[in-house]
Parts: sequence; structure tokens; C-alpha cells
Amino acid sequence: MTAYDDLMAFQRETEALAQVAGRLGWDQETMMPRGAAEQRAEEMAAMEGVLHARRTDSRIADWLAAAVAVDDVAGAQLRLIRRSYDRATKVPATLAQEIARVTSMAQGIWAEARAKEDVPGFLPVLADVIRLRQEEGAALAQGGDVYDALLDDYEPGATAASIGAMFDRMRPRLVALRARVLGAAKQPPVLDAIFGAEGQLRLARDLATAFGYDWDRGRLDLAVHPFSSGSGDDARITTRVVEAEPFNCFYSTIHEVGHACYELGIDSDYRLSPLGAGVSMGVHESQSRIYENQLGRSRAFTGWLFGQMRERFGEFGINTADAFHGAVNRVSPGFIRTEADEVQYNLHIMMRFDLERALIAGDLAVGDLEAAWNDRFAADFGVKVERPSQGMLQDVHWSVGLFGYFPTYSLGNVYAGCLHRALRDDIPDLDAHLTRGETSPATEWLRERVQRHGGLRSPRETIAHACGFEPHEGPLLDYIEAKFAAIYDL
Amino acid sequence: MTAYDDLMAFQRETEALAQVAGRLGWDQETMMPRGAAEQRAEEMAAMEGVLHARRTDSRIADWLAAAVAVDDVAGAQLRLIRRSYDRATKVPATLAQEIARVTSMAQGIWAEARAKEDVPGFLPVLADVIRLRQEEGAALAQGGDVYDALLDDYEPGATAASIGAMFDRMRPRLVALRARVLGAAKQPPVLDAIFGAEGQLRLARDLATAFGYDWDRGRLDLAVHPFSSGSGDDARITTRVVEAEPFNCFYSTIHEVGHACYELGIDSDYRLSPLGAGVSMGVHESQSRIYENQLGRSRAFTGWLFGQMRERFGEFGINTADAFHGAVNRVSPGFIRTEADEVQYNLHIMMRFDLERALIAGDLAVGDLEAAWNDRFAADFGVKVERPSQGMLQDVHWSVGLFGYFPTYSLGNVYAGCLHRALRDDIPDLDAHLTRGETSPATEWLRERVQRHGGLRSPRETIAHACGFEPHEGPLLDYIEAKFAAIYDL
Repeated sequence: MTAYDDLMAFQRETEALAQVAGRLGWDQETMMPRGAAEQRAEEMAAMEGVLHARRTDSRIADWLAAAVAVDDVAGAQLRLIRRSYDRATKVPATLAQEIARVTSMAQGIWAEARAKEDVPGFLPVLADVIRLRQEEGAALAQGGDVYDALLDDYEPGATAASIGAMFDRMRPRLVALRARVLGAAKQPPVLDAIFGAEGQLRLARDLATAFGYDWDRGRLDLAVHPFSSGSGDDARITTRVVEAEPFNCFYSTIHEVGHACYELGIDSDYRLSPLGAGVSMGVHESQSRIYENQLGRSRAFTGWLFGQMRERFGEFGINTADAFHGAVNRVSPGFIRTEADEVQYNLHIMMRFDLERALIAGDLAVGDLEAAWNDRFAADFGVKVERPSQGMLQDVHWSVGLFGYFPTYSLGNVYAGCLHRALRDDIPDLDAHLTRGETSPATEWLRERVQRHGGLRSPRETIAHACGFEPHEGPLLDYIEAKFAAIYDL
Repeated sequence: MTAYDDLMAFQRETEALAQVAGRLGWDQETMMPRGAAEQRAEEMAAMEGVLHARRTDSRIADWLAAAVAVDDVAGAQLRLIRRSYDRATKVPATLAQEIARVTSMAQGIWAEARAKEDVPGFLPVLADVIRLRQEEGAALAQGGDVYDALLDDYEPGATAASIGAMFDRMRPRLVALRARVLGAAKQPPVLDAIFGAEGQLRLARDLATAFGYDWDRGRLDLAVHPFSSGSGDDARITTRVVEAEPFNCFYSTIHEVGHACYELGIDSDYRLSPLGAGVSMGVHESQSRIYENQLGRSRAFTGWLFGQMRERFGEFGINTADAFHGAVNRVSPGFIRTEADEVQYNLHIMMRFDLERALIAGDLAVGDLEAAWNDRFAADFGVKVERPSQGMLQDVHWSVGLFGYFPTYSLGNVYAGCLHRALRDDIPDLDAHLTRGETSPATEWLRERVQRHGGLRSPRETIAHACGFEPHEGPLLDYIEAKFAAIYDL
């Protein structure tokens, strides 16, 4: 056994334990009885303690010093282990464990506060979470920018400055487009009918199948906030059902299928190794978004979906595939990020990005967050937030400590735009397949170009390798402008 | 912090991790996608490695040497930790990890073999499991009896000799009773109707509620082989549904509720400590069995259940509560232990007890097990086994390495007999409550006398403390003889 072999064997056990911890998180949001929340927090903290001890085990430094990379794959493994070790050793074990414990409890408190529209009930624990993440960020930054240190955890190489500059380039085109769309004479119809929960779930399952989800290595359950979870041979997805909002269920499902297919599509040689997981949250989101939007919300695929819905649910007041495509992509003022259309989605992210930077920097007090959210929302969207569940309580992210995570959603959209341009160039007749509900030419292209490589390259290199050009926001904006110009006759 | 405090804090984290490992087992049998089995085996092995390292951590010896018990509770905690440490340090880490890995895989292989009636497909992994458990037993026994060492894990203080002697005293009375019952002129009716799966599950949930199951700290799912899982504030149960066999679903559910209520009923001060779990499998089974049999299959409670079934499912061919009570308790030749009546159940155990002792002693080769099972079944039950799923493939236990476990079922029955005698003495009007579907006088008595104490006393002391007399098989046999004499007009 070489030092490299020893290191990889140790790492493999750590990855297996990380999968266990992840599945505990899945259980918490899908299966766990309510009364178990407090005990679960202790269980999560104990797992976090185990993982932290392993990730900071001093033998890793010795192995890293002695290990020799015989090829590019081994080189990439060592690079990722070194990165993880460097980060883990900067955070004290007690802090890592406290973060696990508090965020586990905070999630339940958030869910209850959201159900009860109870901001004051949520603020104390949110303040704790922010304080702990500030401490962690400071430990990681070692004098550098605290927010950048947190962001780098989700998107290696990204900085608030680069994201901010990208947002500055995106904002004017999106705001201008939104104004033209909302002012257009032609407006798509609104879906206004009830679709039974069971029928929605059945179609959601069929959509997952249509996008190539491997049911032998996954499952679909209900959750308050849809998510995907797990890697290797066990990547599960969740969705939610509201009887008046079937698109929510269907497109949440397709979105999570994109995430899960990324994990399931990684080369099985990388299983339970550092390379065996999506390389960053941004690249992850590029997969979920291209499945959901560029493929799932395309004119071609919605034509197929229109037929499916008519067949299964009967007439529902929308009578042509063009009108249905418009309804699926309708742009309207709305409060909820996860339900936002492609024109406005990134504007939601820009707002969260600014607010969370202010929270982490200490420029915005937790007690002022609700007012800040509502003021900013009124300014950016022209609508008054009436209930906290429409506003600052809508997302789970901050409760579980995900600061620096939101901008990766926009990066994912930008990457999806790049991938979509390259994919369309490579497969000119893609629409002929999508029209029949066949996504495999696209999903196989994505699997081959992006998914199977896992963590082999950096996030930006991963996209550049797949597309043949450096990623930038241009293709996404071009795509959005063309798509909505067609729908709204601009 | 004293040495005792340090030890208990360390132990608490270990117990939390053990809960995580247990929940992984629950997931495997209820939720896990099939294709994840191999990866799951690695995850289980990694968890087992972590737990084994903690249970053999040399600091435990130091803490135990320095710790002072300030009261009986602390004394009991130290006694249990010492016992666990002594046992854990005798088993090499690699062996413990290999057992976890192989048994995790073997369970899937067993399930598939059972579905396909494929004994040869199961034997290789069974041979591995037996070999590994023999090695473990030898390491534990240190020259003593290997089977006793395994048995002691589930039932501290029990030996094959004491169990064998008890079975020798039980067998003649049970065999004689069976002969009289099967030859009786009066025979209860057979339930012969179809009961919809959804309706069964709804009633199963209501039965769990009737027996005091705390839904806020548990949940009910489907599994091939019903089981309960978890401790503290998260004790989950499973059941199965066969449309022609509603009693299977209902009484499996009540049985598992008994197990779960034991865990949930333990004093919350003991949560995530050695005292915070059922003291032995035998005492555990006493709770599940008294819920299921002495309470659930009593004339009084079945009267209430009869009304419920008529109300929910309409007429089903049995028209009086007496006849229904007879149908619930009907004695007939049958292959499946979990479906066996109270007269024959322990005869199933006696057979497994002898076979598994022979397997562990090396007196019976795995390749000869099917023939040995079928011969013994024909001798003891007078019926020829026609399919392995009726025979040696019916139970999950051996596939997951549970050798020495089966006799604890009979011990549980014996303990339940003792508790029932004491309970009836204390609550003379119990039947008046059971007739209305109210079990709380009995379940509260059990909670107070047995459940809340967790691991405070040894298994036999636990029962003796609750009953006021030393446990023996007499009360169980007296109860069974009286009950079936009444049903069969003997």
C-alpha cells in the first residue's frame, strides 16, 4: 500500500460517512417524526464531530506529503483532498459541531415559523446561525473577506467581486426585458384549474423517467422545500404538490432530477471519492436548470407535456400548445424565488446576494432583515410583501446556514446558458426529440460532456471543457431575450 | 468535569451515532432504492468502524477506573458501559467491520432468495455470516461456549443450558395442549375474506393509537419483515399487508407498537445513555408479546376489534364476537413463525434454537440446513415444507447474523406470562376497559413497572421487580391452557 492508497482508503470511509450524514438530512425533511427534532440535532452534531475529526486527521497531512499522483485523476483527487483538509483544519471542531447542532434545530424552527408567519420566532436562532457562520468564515478567511470564504465553499474560485460584476452586466438587460414583457400587448393565459395531487405525482414520476432518472438508484418523496440528496448509487429527490399549481410540482421535479442525474451520472470509478460528487453548486445548478428550463420549458418539450396533461387531466382551459408554452413561461409579479420565471429569477438572487453579504458583514442586523427584505423587494419588483412566508421566510437556506450559496443559482443559470448554446450547436434536431418527450440526446450529451467527470476539473474549467468556450453570461441572456420575444411578440 | 461526566458525555455521542446507524438499517428495509445495496454495505461498515473505535476507545478504561457512582443510576450506567467495553475490546475491529459489511449485503441477498425460492443463491453468504459470527463468538467466549457468548449479547445472563431446560419443561405441556386443541370437536371459524390494503393500514394506525403509540415520536411504514427501530424520541415501526390476512397486519402492528412503546416509555433522563434502551431482547419481546397476545388477542379486546372490522369492512362471514375471538386465536398447522398461534409459537423457536446451535457449533453444515429444517419441521409439526419461503428462508434473522436471538422470543413470551399474571392481579376490571378498546390501564401499568426503568436492572430482575416474583414459565403455560380450553371447549 502506498501513501496514496492509504489516503484514498481513509477518504473512502469518510465519503461513506458523509453519505450517511446526508441521508440523515434527507430523513429529517421527509420522514422524521416531529418530536424527534431535538434528538436528531444531537445525532447530526455527533456525525459532524466524527466527520470533522476525520477531515482534520493529521495523518492526512502525512499522506499528502508522501503521496505521488500517477495520473491526472490521482492529481485531481489529491488536489481536492488538500483543499478539503486545508479548509477543515482552519475550523475548530467545537465550532463545526455547534454549527451542525444549531442548524439542525434551526431548520425545524424555520419550518414552524414559516407555517405560522412568525418572524420573531425565527430571529433568535437565525442570529445564532449568522454568528456561527461569521465565526467560521473568519476562521477560513484568515484576514481575507469573510463572505468570499463562505462562497468559495460552494463555488471554488468564485468571489463576491466577480459575482457582483456579473450581476451588474446582467441586471440592465433583464430589467429592460421584464419591462417590455410586462408591457406587451400579447399576454399568455394563466393556468386556472385544479389538478389532483395523485395525478400530479404520477405525472411527476413520469417526467422524472422521461429525463432519465434511474429509479433503481433513487426515489421521490414529498418535502416542504424540494431538494435532492445523496451521491453514488443513492441520489434521492423530493417534490411538493399544490393542487392549483401543477407546474410547481412538475418543474421542481425536473429540476431535482437534473441534480440527481449529475450525481448518478458520475463515472462509477469515482464513487465514494472526492471526484465522485458534483464539482460545485454552480455546476450542479447548471444541470438542474438546463433540465428544467432550456429543455423542460422549451416550446418542443412543453408541446409534449401539453398532450400528457390533456390526456390525464382532461380539458383545463388552455387549448393550444403555443398558449400552453406561454402559460408555462408566463412572466408575472410574484414573491417566490422557486416559482419565478426565467426573466426574473436572477433578480431574486441579486437581492438575496446583497442582503446576505450585509448580514455576514454585520452591516444589517437580524432585527432589521424583514424591513430590508420588504423594502428591497418593493424597489426591485414593485410589489409589497404581505406575509413573511412570501418574503424572508420563504427559503430554507439561511436557517441551515447556507450563506454564500444563493449566487451559485445564478452561476448555474449562466453555465446552463453556455451548455445550451453548445448543445444546440451539436444536436441541431434536438427539438424533434423533445417534441416526443425524448430528452435522451440532450441528457446523454450532458452526461458525456459534464456529468461523468465529477470533480476532475475546476467549476469554470468543467463548463469550458464541455462548451469549448469560456463561460460568460452572454448565451443565457441571448437565449432568454429570444425566447421571451417569441412568446410575447416583442 | 469528573471522570464520570467525561465518560457519560463520550458515551452520549456514541449512543447518538448508534441511533444513526440504526436509522440507516431502518432506511435499508423501508426506503432504500435497490441499486444502492452495495454502497449501503460500505456505509454501514464505515459506521460500524466508527462505533467500534469508540466502544473500544482506551479512554473508557481510564474513565471507568476513575469514575465514582454517586447513586444507583450512575452505578447501573457504569455497569452497562463496563460490560459493553469488555465485550467490544474482545472483538477485533476488522472482524466487527466485516460482519457489518457482509450482513448488510446478505440481507438483500436473503430477500431476493426468499422471493425467488432460491436456497442455493443464499447459502454462500449465509456460510460467510456463520463463519464470521463463529469467529466473533469465539473471541467473546475466550474458551467458553461460543453460542452462549452470542446469546449473552441479546439476553445478558441467559445460557443455552438454562434455555434448554426451560424448553424441556415447556414442550410436553404445549405438545399435549396442541393435540387436544387440534382434536377438539369444536373448531373456530377461519377468516376467509379480502380486506383492502388501504383499509387495513388505516385500522393498523388506529390500533397503534389504541395501544398508546406516540405518533409525534414515531411512524409506520411497510417492510418485508415487520420490525421496530430506534430509541429515545424516534422509535419507528413497520408492518406488512396481505389482503387475505388482515390479522397478520393488525397483530404485527400491535407487536411492534409494544417494542416501540418500551423504547418511548423509558425515563427521558436516560435518553442517549446506556440505560436509555430496552434492557434485553427478552424483556423487549415481553412488551411486544403482552401487547399483541395477552392484551390484543384477549376476548375483551377482540370484541372491540370485531366491531371495528364490521364497521369498516362490512360483513365478512364471522357473526359473533366469540367466533371472532376463536378465529383470531385459531390453532392450525402452519409454516410461518410470525403467524403462529400462542400454542405453537414456542415450538417454532425450539426448533430454530436447536438448528442454530448446531450451525454455530459446526455440527450442521450450511448445505444440510434445508434438509435438517424440513426434517425437523415434519417431526415437530407433522407437515411437509414445500417451499423454502415456508421453511428456512422465512426469517431475516440468520442473514443479518442474529444467532442466539431466537430464544429471546420465548423468554419474552415467558416474561409476558409473568407480567400478565401480576397485571391482572393489580387491575381486576381490566377487561371492562379492553372491551371498549382502551388499553391504557394495562399499558400505563407496564410503562410504570417495566418500561420507564430501561436498563436499570438485569433482565430477570426487571421482570421480578415488576411482578413481585421470580420469572418462570408457569404463568405463561397456565394462561395458554386456560385460554385455549375456553376457546375449544376442552
